[in-house]
Amino acid sequence: MSIDTHHKRKSNDWRGNWKSFGRQYSRASVGSFHHAVAPVLLLGQCITLLPVVNIFNTNFRTARFKLRSFRCIYSLVYLVLTGIYCAASIRWYIRKGLNISYFGNCIYMVVVYLSAWLFFFVAIRWQSTLSAFGNCERLFLRDHYRRQTKGTFTLGWKIRFAGFSIFALALVEDWLNYYSAYQSNIVQIATCNRTNVTVWQNFYLREHPHVFHLLPFNVFTILVTEWINRCMRYTWTYLDIFIIAFCYGAQFRYEQIYRRLVAVQGIACPANFWHDVRMDYVAVSELVQLLDTQFGNLILLACANDMYFIATQLFNGFQRRRAIANYIYFWYSLLLLMFRTIVMIYVGSGVYVASTSPLQLLRNVPSNNWGIDLQRLTDEVASGDNVLSGKQFFFLKRQLILAMAGTLVTYELVLLDQVKKIPDTSTDCSYF
Amino acid sequence: MSIDTHHKRKSNDWRGNWKSFGRQYSRASVGSFHHAVAPVLLLGQCITLLPVVNIFNTNFRTARFKLRSFRCIYSLVYLVLTGIYCAASIRWYIRKGLNISYFGNCIYMVVVYLSAWLFFFVAIRWQSTLSAFGNCERLFLRDHYRRQTKGTFTLGWKIRFAGFSIFALALVEDWLNYYSAYQSNIVQIATCNRTNVTVWQNFYLREHPHVFHLLPFNVFTILVTEWINRCMRYTWTYLDIFIIAFCYGAQFRYEQIYRRLVAVQGIACPANFWHDVRMDYVAVSELVQLLDTQFGNLILLACANDMYFIATQLFNGFQRRRAIANYIYFWYSLLLLMFRTIVMIYVGSGVYVASTSPLQLLRNVPSNNWGIDLQRLTDEVASGDNVLSGKQFFFLKRQLILAMAGTLVTYELVLLDQVKKIPDTSTDCSYF
Amino acid sequence: MSIDTHHKRKSNDWRGNWKSFGRQYSRASVGSFHHAVAPVLLLGQCITLLPVVNIFNTNFRTARFKLRSFRCIYSLVYLVLTGIYCAASIRWYIRKGLNISYFGNCIYMVVVYLSAWLFFFVAIRWQSTLSAFGNCERLFLRDHYRRQTKGTFTLGWKIRFAGFSIFALALVEDWLNYYSAYQSNIVQIATCNRTNVTVWQNFYLREHPHVFHLLPFNVFTILVTEWINRCMRYTWTYLDIFIIAFCYGAQFRYEQIYRRLVAVQGIACPANFWHDVRMDYVAVSELVQLLDTQFGNLILLACANDMYFIATQLFNGFQRRRAIANYIYFWYSLLLLMFRTIVMIYVGSGVYVASTSPLQLLRNVPSNNWGIDLQRLTDEVASGDNVLSGKQFFFLKRQLILAMAGTLVTYELVLLDQVKKIPDTSTDCSYF
Amino acid sequence: MSIDTHHKRKSNDWRGNWKSFGRQYSRASVGSFHHAVAPVLLLGQCITLLPVVNIFNTNFRTARFKLRSFRCIYSLVYLVLTGIYCAASIRWYIRKGLNISYFGNCIYMVVVYLSAWLFFFVAIRWQSTLSAFGNCERLFLRDHYRRQTKGTFTLGWKIRFAGFSIFALALVEDWLNYYSAYQSNIVQIATCNRTNVTVWQNFYLREHPHVFHLLPFNVFTILVTEWINRCMRYTWTYLDIFIIAFCYGAQFRYEQIYRRLVAVQGIACPANFWHDVRMDYVAVSELVQLLDTQFGNLILLACANDMYFIATQLFNGFQRRRAIANYIYFWYSLLLLMFRTIVMIYVGSGVYVASTSPLQLLRNVPSNNWGIDLQRLTDEVASGDNVLSGKQFFFLKRQLILAMAGTLVTYELVLLDQVKKIPDTSTDCSYF
Repeated sequence: MSIDTHHKRKSNDWRGNWKSFGRQYSRASVGSFHHAVAPVLLLGQCITLLPVVNIFNTNFRTARFKLRSFRCIYSLVYLVLTGIYCAASIRWYIRKGLNISYFGNCIYMVVVYLSAWLFFFVAIRWQSTLSAFGNCERLFLRDHYRRQTKGTFTLGWKIRFAGFSIFALALVEDWLNYYSAYQSNIVQIATCNRTNVTVWQNFYLREHPHVFHLLPFNVFTILVTEWINRCMRYTWTYLDIFIIAFCYGAQFRYEQIYRRLVAVQGIACPANFWHDVRMDYVAVSELVQLLDTQFGNLILLACANDMYFIATQLFNGFQRRRAIANYIYFWYSLLLLMFRTIVMIYVGSGVYVASTSPLQLLRNVPSNNWGIDLQRLTDEVASGDNVLSGKQFFFLKRQLILAMAGTLVTYELVLLDQVKKIPDTSTDCSYF
Repeated sequence: MSIDTHHKRKSNDWRGNWKSFGRQYSRASVGSFHHAVAPVLLLGQCITLLPVVNIFNTNFRTARFKLRSFRCIYSLVYLVLTGIYCAASIRWYIRKGLNISYFGNCIYMVVVYLSAWLFFFVAIRWQSTLSAFGNCERLFLRDHYRRQTKGTFTLGWKIRFAGFSIFALALVEDWLNYYSAYQSNIVQIATCNRTNVTVWQNFYLREHPHVFHLLPFNVFTILVTEWINRCMRYTWTYLDIFIIAFCYGAQFRYEQIYRRLVAVQGIACPANFWHDVRMDYVAVSELVQLLDTQFGNLILLACANDMYFIATQLFNGFQRRRAIANYIYFWYSLLLLMFRTIVMIYVGSGVYVASTSPLQLLRNVPSNNWGIDLQRLTDEVASGDNVLSGKQFFFLKRQLILAMAGTLVTYELVLLDQVKKIPDTSTDCSYF
Repeated sequence: MSIDTHHKRKSNDWRGNWKSFGRQYSRASVGSFHHAVAPVLLLGQCITLLPVVNIFNTNFRTARFKLRSFRCIYSLVYLVLTGIYCAASIRWYIRKGLNISYFGNCIYMVVVYLSAWLFFFVAIRWQSTLSAFGNCERLFLRDHYRRQTKGTFTLGWKIRFAGFSIFALALVEDWLNYYSAYQSNIVQIATCNRTNVTVWQNFYLREHPHVFHLLPFNVFTILVTEWINRCMRYTWTYLDIFIIAFCYGAQFRYEQIYRRLVAVQGIACPANFWHDVRMDYVAVSELVQLLDTQFGNLILLACANDMYFIATQLFNGFQRRRAIANYIYFWYSLLLLMFRTIVMIYVGSGVYVASTSPLQLLRNVPSNNWGIDLQRLTDEVASGDNVLSGKQFFFLKRQLILAMAGTLVTYELVLLDQVKKIPDTSTDCSYF
Repeated sequence: MSIDTHHKRKSNDWRGNWKSFGRQYSRASVGSFHHAVAPVLLLGQCITLLPVVNIFNTNFRTARFKLRSFRCIYSLVYLVLTGIYCAASIRWYIRKGLNISYFGNCIYMVVVYLSAWLFFFVAIRWQSTLSAFGNCERLFLRDHYRRQTKGTFTLGWKIRFAGFSIFALALVEDWLNYYSAYQSNIVQIATCNRTNVTVWQNFYLREHPHVFHLLPFNVFTILVTEWINRCMRYTWTYLDIFIIAFCYGAQFRYEQIYRRLVAVQGIACPANFWHDVRMDYVAVSELVQLLDTQFGNLILLACANDMYFIATQLFNGFQRRRAIANYIYFWYSLLLLMFRTIVMIYVGSGVYVASTSPLQLLRNVPSNNWGIDLQRLTDEVASGDNVLSGKQFFFLKRQLILAMAGTLVTYELVLLDQVKKIPDTSTDCSYF
C-alpha cells in the first residue's frame, strides 16, 4: 500500500514536504483531512496553539504531540506568561471596580486562556483524532469516491480558504484597532498637554496600564506584552476557524456519499453496494460522534463567547458616539464577529444538512431492490442525529441561528432602558 | 401525444391561447401548475417581475426566459432605474439622519430591490422549475387522479383567486394611501398659506423630496417616479402571492393522493397499486424539496420582511393619532399586512399538513395487504419532513404563526416604554 | 339486538329515560359517550347551548339537531337578543373611549358570542359526531373491554363529576361577583347621597348602563338582561367543560386498550389478538383525528381566551387595592380561571399521554410472537401524533402548560412598568 | 440462592450489617441500588426524612416502612411540629405585610414542608420501589455484566460521593449563614446599645421572631426551633441529592449495557444474545418509566423551587451591598444553589444520554446478523423516550439547562428596572 511506503519517513522540514505535495498530487494522503488542515494548523502554531509536529508529513500517523519540540516549548512559555498576565490584569480590573466594560475584558481573558489550554489538550490527543479521521477517510480516498468529487472544490481548498479569509479579516480588524487607538492617543496628548512622552510611549502606557504599573517600561516588556496580546486576540478568531475546519472535514464525507448515490440514481444496485454505502455512512457518523465528544467543549465555548460579546457590543452600539476611526473600528469589529459566528454555525449545521441529504435519493430506490441494508441506511439517514453539538446543550442546526438572533433581539430591546453613558476615556489624562 | 402536437407552435399572442384554453379544456396542459399560474405570472410581468415568454402556451416547455424580449428589457430598465432611485433615496435618508421611520424606508427599499433581482433569477431558471413541476404533474394529470378532483376547486382557481384577491386588496390599500396623502396635503397647503403651487405639485414635492431636489419637476419625472414607486410597492405584495402560488401547486398534488386513497378505502389493493402511489408521493416530495431549495430564499426574505414591518407598524400604532383618513389607511395597511403574512404561512404550512394527511388512511389498511411499499410509504408520510422552509432556518408549519405572534407580542410589550412621538410632518412646511 | 328494540321509541321526556337508565344499567348504551355526556349537555341547554333533542334516549342515533324544537328556538332567541346586546354594548364601550378594561369586555363579548354560534354549529353536526363516537365505541362496549374497567371510575362518572364541579365553582364565583357588586353599591349610595333610588335599582343601573340608557328600566328588561348576562358568563365556563368532556371520551378508550394489554401481559397472544387490538387502536386514533378537526376551533378559542384573560387579570392583580369583598372575588375569580384552564389542558393532554401508554407493554412482548400487526401497532403508538390540537397551531401536551406559564410570567414582568391606576369606579356617581 | 438464605434474617442493627458488608463484598446485594443508596438514606433519616427500616440489610426485601419504629415516630413528630411552625410563621409573615423577601420565605416553607410529606409517602412505597429496582438489577448483577464494570466507579461510590459532597457543601453554607448572622448581630447590638441581652439571646430573637413572640425564650424552645430549622434547610438540599441518587441508579444500568455491547463489538453474536440484551434494555426502560411516575412530582418540585430561588437570589444580587461576611454568604449560597441545580439536571439528563448511547454500536452491527430483536432494540434505543421528566411538563435533557438559563437571563434583564432597596434590617432595633 502506498500509505505504508511512507510510514518510516519522518521529517520536520515542512517546506520540503510542502513542495513534494505539489509533485505527489495523486498520492494517498491528498484529499485527507490531515493534508487539508495542515496549513491552518501551521497558522495556529504561529499563535502558539496546537503544538503538533510533522503536520506536513504525507503520513498522518507521524503527526503527533511532542513535548520536547520547539513548538511545544513555545506554547508552554506562552501559557505560563499569559497565565501571569491574565491573573495580574484581572486583579487590576477588580481593584479598579468592575464596570460592564472591565467585566467583559475579564471574561474575554478567561475564555481565551481557557481556549489556549483546550487547544493544548487537543494537540495532545491530535494523533488519535487524526487516526479516527484516517480510519473513516480510508474508505473515501478510493477511486469510486474520488471520481465523484471531480470538478468540485476539494476539502483542502474549502478549509484553507475559509480559515485564511477569516484570519485576514481579523488582521484588518487588528490594524483598525491599532489605528483607532493611535488616533485617540494623538488627541489625548494634545488635550492633556503631554510633552514628556512620545506618542508610542503614551500609546503603550494607556493600552496596557495593568502591565506597566508593575513592570518597567522598555522594549522587551512592550514586545512581550504585544506578543501575548496578539496571540490572545487571534486565539479567539482561531477557535472559530478550527471548528469550521473539522466541520468541513466531516461534511465533505457525507457529500461524497451523496454524490455517489446521485451517480447511481436509477440504476439497480446489488445488495453488496448498499452494504458498502451503509458502512461508509456509519463510519462518517462515528467520526461525527467522536468529533462531538472531543470538540463539543470547544463548540460550547465558542458559541457562548461569541453570543456574549455580540450582546455586549450591540448594547454598546446604542450608546457610543465616538470619533470616525473608533466608529469604523467598532462596527467593523461587530460585523466581523457576527459574520464569524454565523459562518461557524452555518458550516457546523452543514454537517447535519449533508447527513440528511441522501434521504430523498433513498426513497427513490424501487422496492424490488429493497433489502435490510437499504432499510437500515434509510433509518439512519432519517433519524437526523448525525449532528454536532455543544456538549448536547444545543445542536448545530440552522434553526440555532434564528434562536440566537431572536434571543439577542429580546435582550437588546429589554436593555434599551439601561443605556447609560460609559465614561469616555479618550480625554482621561491619568495612566493607571 | 397531444402534448407533442402543439410542441412546434409558438405564439406570443396570449389572447389567442387564452381563448383556445376554453376550447381545449380537456387537454393535457389544463390542471398543470404552468396553466394555473399563467395569469398570476402576467400580473407579475405588469410590475416588471418574472420576464418569461410564452407563459400562456399550452406546452410548458416553450415558456422560458428570453433576453431579447420586450418583457426582459422592460424588467432590466426597471432594475437599472430602481437601482439608481434606491441608491439616491438611501443616500438622502442617511443625510437627513436615520430615525426609525427613515431606517424602515431604507430596509423596505433594499428588500424590494433585492426581491426584484431574485425574481429576475427565478425567471432565468423558470424553464427548469416548470420542467420539475411537469415531471411530477405528468403522473397527476392521468384519469385516475382527474376523477378524484371532480367537484372540488381546481388548482388554477385556487392560485388565481388567492393571487388576484390579495392584489385587489393591495390596490385598495394603495388608493387609501393616495387619498390619505392627498388629504394631508390639502391641510398642509392651508396651514402654510401656499399659493404658488397647485395641490398636485405640492403632493409630489412632499411625497418624493429625495427625487425632486435632484431632478426637474415635470410630467416625465413624475411619471417615472410614480411607475417605480407603484412597481416597488406591488413587488412586496407579489412576493407573498408568488409563494402562495407554488405552495398551492405542491399542496394540490398531495391532496390528490389523499383523495385517491380515500376512494380505495376498504378495498384490498394489489401491491402494484401501492407501488404506484408511493412513487407518486415520492415525486411530489422531490418537487417540494426542489421548491424548498430554489425558493427558500424568497420565503426567508418574505417572512423576515413581513415580520419586521408588522413589528414596526404595531409599534407605530401605539403612538400616532392622526386625521381620520390617515387613521383608516394605517390600520387597513397593518391589517392587510398581517392578513397577507398569515395567509402566506398558512398556505405554506398547508403543504406539510397535506403531506401527512394520508397517514391515518394508511394505518387503516389491513395487515394482510401489507408489503414493502406500504411500509415505506407509511414511513415517508410519517417522517413529516415534506415541508417548505426558509432555507431551513425555520419550517413552514402552523406552529410558526404562533411562534411569530408570541415573539411579536413580547417585542411590543418590551417596546411599550420606548414610545416617543415621531414629529408630525403634516404641518411641516419645508419640502426637502 | 337490544339497540334495535329501542330504535323506534322516541321520547323527549328525559326524566323517564333517566329513570330507565337506572334499571337498564347493563344495556348497550351505558358506558358510551352519548350516555355519559347527556347530563352535561342538558346543563349546556339550560344556558341555551347545544340545542339537541333526545339526548337521554338510549339510542344515540335519535339524538339530533331539530330546528322545530323548543330547545332550538330557545337558542335562536338567545342568539338574536345577545347579538343585539353585544353590538349595543361594544358601540357604547367604543364611545366611552376604549381603555384596557373596556377593551377586555369587548373581547369577552365577541368571544362568548362566537362560542355560542360555534356551539350552535356543533349541535347541527352532533348526530355525525355521536355516530363517529358510536362506531368507535361499539368495539369497546364488548365484554372483554368491559371486564377491564371494573373497579375504576366509569366514563360517565368522570365527565359528569368534572363538568358539574367546575360549574358549581362558577356558580360560587357568580354569587361572589353579585355580592361584591352589591356591597360596592351600598357604599356608592352612601357616598353619593342617593335617596331617589333603591339599592337594586342603583345596582342594575350601574351594572348595565349600556342597556338602560337605551331601554326603559322595568322588571322585564332587567330579567332579559340578567338572563343574557348569566348565559354569557356560563358559556365561557361551559366551553372548557365541553372540551374536558370529549377529551375524557377519547382518553377513556385508550385507557381501555392499555388495561386490556396489561391483562394479557406475559401471555403469548395469537396474531389475531394483535390484529384486533391494532384495529381498536386505529379506531380511537381516527376518532381523535375527527375530534381534532371538528372541535379544534373550540380548543383554539378556549385557550386563546383563557390565556388573554389570565394575562389581563394578573396585570390587574398588581394594581387594585379594593374592599375585602372585591378582593376575595377578584382572587377567587382569577384562581378559578387558572384552575379551569390548567384542568382543561391537563385533561386534553391526557389523550396524548393515554395514547402513548401502551408503548412499554408492547416492548415487553417477546420477539417470537412478533408480527406485522405488532410492528405496525408499535409504530403507531410510538409516533405520538394521536393528540388533540388547537387547529394544529399548538398541541395539547403537558409541556403546553409550562410554555403558557413561561410566556405569561415574561409578559407580566415586562408589564410591571406599565402598572397605572385604573380610575376607581366605586365612588363615581354618574350612571352612564 | 444467596438472596434467599438471608431472607429471614431481619435486623435493625445497621452497624452489624454495615460491618458484614465488608466481609461479604462479593455477595449478591453488593452493586445493587439498595446497597448503594443505604448511607444516603441514613443521611436523610438524620433529618427525619424517609423513615424506612433495615436499609443496611443485605436483603432489600426487608427494607420497608414500619409505622411502629423510632424513625417513623421521629418523622411524624417532625411533621407535626413543622406543620405548626410553618402555619405560625406564614401567619406572622402575612400580618407583617408580604414583601418579596417574606413571600420567598413563605414559598420556601410550603415547598419544604410539602417535600417532607412527599418523602414520607416515598418511604411508604419504598419497598415496592426497591423491588422494582431489584427486579431490574437481578439481570445486571450477573457475571457477564459485573466483568464489564471492573475498573470503573461503582454505583455505590457514585451515589455516595455525589450525595455526601453536596451535603458537605450545604453544611459549609449553613455555617456561613450562622457566621454572617452572628456578625450582623454583634453590629446590631453595638448600634442599638443593647445591654440587657446576650449576643446569643439577641441572635435567636432576631432570627426567629415569629417563634419567640408566641413561645417563652428558653433552651428547650431554642433547641426545637433550631432542630426544625436545620431539618428544613437540609430537606431542600436532600431533595436534589435523592433525585441524583435514583438517576445514577438508572443511568448505571444503561451504561452496563453499553459496556457489554462495546465488549462484543465486531463479534458476530447469536440471535439469543440480542434477545437477552433487548430484554435487559427493556427492563431498565421499565424501571425508568416507574421512577418517572413515582418521583416525577419530586423532580417537578425540585426544579420549580430551584429555579424560583435562583431567580429571586439573582435579583437580590443586584441590590444588596452588605458586610463582607454577608457578601460571602450570599454568593456562596447562590453559587451552591446553581451548582446543585445544574448537577441535578445534568445527572438526570445522564439517564437520557446513557439510554441512547448504544445506538452507534447497534448501527455498526453487520446486516447478516440482523434480526427482529436487533431491529426492535434499535427502534427502542433510537426512540429517545427513555427519559425522566417532571410529570411530563418538562424532560430532563441537557437542553433544559440552556432553556432555564435563557429564561432566567430574560427575567433578570426585565427585572433590572425594578431593583429597589429592600430595607436593610441590620440596624433595625425592633424584634418583632
